[in-house]
Amino acid sequence: MFEAKLGQSALLKKIIEAIKDLVADAPFDCTETAMNLQAMDASHVALVSLKLENGLFEKYRCDRTFNIGLNLIELSKILKCAKNEDSCLVRYDEDDGDSITFTFEDVHGRKQDIIQKLMSIDAEHLGIPEQKYACVIEMPSVEFQRTCRDIGMFSDSLSITSAKTSGNIVFSGKGDSVTNTVTYSAGSATADDDENEAISIVVREEVKVSYAIKYMNMFTKATSLSGRVRVSLSNNVPMAIEYGVEDNGYIRFYLAPKIEEGGDADMD
Amino acid sequence: MFEAKLGQSALLKKIIEAIKDLVADAPFDCTETAMNLQAMDASHVALVSLKLENGLFEKYRCDRTFNIGLNLIELSKILKCAKNEDSCLVRYDEDDGDSITFTFEDVHGRKQDIIQKLMSIDAEHLGIPEQKYACVIEMPSVEFQRTCRDIGMFSDSLSITSAKTSGNIVFSGKGDSVTNTVTYSAGSATADDDENEAISIVVREEVKVSYAIKYMNMFTKATSLSGRVRVSLSNNVPMAIEYGVEDNGYIRFYLAPKIEEGGDADMD
Amino acid sequence: MFEAKLGQSALLKKIIEAIKDLVADAPFDCTETAMNLQAMDASHVALVSLKLENGLFEKYRCDRTFNIGLNLIELSKILKCAKNEDSCLVRYDEDDGDSITFTFEDVHGRKQDIIQKLMSIDAEHLGIPEQKYACVIEMPSVEFQRTCRDIGMFSDSLSITSAKTSGNIVFSGKGDSVTNTVTYSAGSATADDDENEAISIVVREEVKVSYAIKYMNMFTKATSLSGRVRVSLSNNVPMAIEYGVEDNGYIRFYLAPKIEEGGDADMD
Repeated sequence: MFEAKLGQSALLKKIIEAIKDLVADAPFDCTETAMNLQAMDASHVALVSLKLENGLFEKYRCDRTFNIGLNLIELSKILKCAKNEDSCLVRYDEDDGDSITFTFEDVHGRKQDIIQKLMSIDAEHLGIPEQKYACVIEMPSVEFQRTCRDIGMFSDSLSITSAKTSGNIVFSGKGDSVTNTVTYSAGSATADDDENEAISIVVREEVKVSYAIKYMNMFTKATSLSGRVRVSLSNNVPMAIEYGVEDNGYIRFYLAPKIEEGGDADMD
Repeated sequence: MFEAKLGQSALLKKIIEAIKDLVADAPFDCTETAMNLQAMDASHVALVSLKLENGLFEKYRCDRTFNIGLNLIELSKILKCAKNEDSCLVRYDEDDGDSITFTFEDVHGRKQDIIQKLMSIDAEHLGIPEQKYACVIEMPSVEFQRTCRDIGMFSDSLSITSAKTSGNIVFSGKGDSVTNTVTYSAGSATADDDENEAISIVVREEVKVSYAIKYMNMFTKATSLSGRVRVSLSNNVPMAIEYGVEDNGYIRFYLAPKIEEGGDADMD
Repeated sequence: MFEAKLGQSALLKKIIEAIKDLVADAPFDCTETAMNLQAMDASHVALVSLKLENGLFEKYRCDRTFNIGLNLIELSKILKCAKNEDSCLVRYDEDDGDSITFTFEDVHGRKQDIIQKLMSIDAEHLGIPEQKYACVIEMPSVEFQRTCRDIGMFSDSLSITSAKTSGNIVFSGKGDSVTNTVTYSAGSATADDDENEAISIVVREEVKVSYAIKYMNMFTKATSLSGRVRVSLSNNVPMAIEYGVEDNGYIRFYLAPKIEEGGDADMD
């Protein structure tokens, strides 16, 4: 038996919206302490790693480890049936066989039970090595989203460069007739005197990296989940982009850098 | 001569939006006491019955019975030219021949006259027998709309069941891999202590009925007309869905139940 | 060297949105005192004339006359990267060759440099003769936009008639089955006691003119630039529609009248 209850459906809606365009069929691993998901996109260039700790839930029970495969496009539609403030109970009983039940309830006695069929998905567990990155940027997530979107209007790739001396970070993209360059100074902020708005840049060594912009625009769908984002970069290794989930979990995206000839490296 | 004046165009906008997807060519019957419309949809599965009593209007004059055939798609566009708070005068003079004039005026002297050509439409008057229904539900119209929309996301049909003993009412739909069930308890409400939000369920005998969801989603376009909706059900007869029009009329939709083999019964 | 700085990017966004559907490739003339643009639409029926005086800018420097050709579709996308309240610096250095730089900055140190390639465009300078018009209407720009939109819902052309005696002005359009007529009384206003809402109509001689509505709906994209619009009409000559730009410039549209047989006169 697996049972987990969120006080508000809004949180699960945001999480699924953030990953459904990247991963259609998601193999969740539910353990005693957390719901986990690790999956690659179809082209094997990006990887998403999600952890939702039991502290996020009003109620959490997981008798043993369960692998629960769900189609996220369908799940996204299911969650559209819940109001943001409805409670959301997720329930899987191994005796029921191949389905999971989502129950949305409001404070006035309206109860909606939605049963979704499970899928059998081959999970491929990848060890993601802990990494000391050459450059780590923490900034408001809306600011990062906006910069990726602006660069993506003219270019297919996003270049990021940071020099150790200046402490600045430069995002840029070059299209056929338009070049766009966004510069953040270390220590700048998007609103005065507000820690949440600060842009912190730590550069251990110079980086100069390039990524396919279309993935960045998928990752930044997680913007509504968290006010802050952490972008970690090193030359020649996948970048990591992390959004926290209410201090009880995270969603991390990894993306292989672009190879010079224009192709993307893959994650394998 | 037929003349009717509404203080605000918004009301007529809402009425036409509620029926224009169901009935393209509408034969209005104007009498000394009311404007009436009765029409079936193209597939003869649904019927709309509209009554706008003269009490709704600031001015109402109808010398004799007139049959006025109007294309509602066109009328909907005409009404888009009126601001919600503009007054709306509808005028038909039999000496002018085959057209009707809508005059929208604001309080600052802007006057817009729109002349629409009439259509000749064969009206088929159906006697709708008064009926004692097995189950009558009154609920907030937005709540009903939301439930129909949620069920329609996964299923082509809406099943409604009510048991006499529990007093509960259950809306459900079954799709290929998702089943959705919404349950209302008798006496529940969508907001505390508010009569307009109460859900009242009267069950004389058990019902178990099934309808094509696409019609429900057309009927619920009338939601903006009235805060409440009344849904009346009996086994094997058309359901009735009624929205009041400011205590001076109504819009009623009738829908034949689905026949087991998957077809729809028709209303004739 | 040409350099011009606006305190807020919003102004330039509105200007480019107002003309980009009419003129794709725009030859700007920058002089010591103003940025100017004069261009015809592809079909040579409409002409736009834009003047942005140096008083509009926080900083303005133009060493000699420069012809700067820009693709406005691209420029519109570039301006979407600026927040409304970002400052906007436009910079052209003849030594840099064939590109112009837009720099958007916010108050928190975010700086975005966008470089756009210039185009070589043959400018055709048309002398627009000063004209004493038979009828001049000044009205709220949103009111004019709304009337053009309402008429355009049913008709391809907009007829405007004004009689010297009544002082009224009548906009109308005739479609297949709907005729729409909007009448303004001289001295009427769209809101009481507000000078900005007044409708002033000066008729020197009767006019009866007809224009292609699709151009009107392009011109009225300038509505957000100014609360007021001036419409100047004479029989058989192009109409002029003028929006002020913060007392330091204007955008004027000229449109040739429709010829009876249904074609449009051209401006040449």
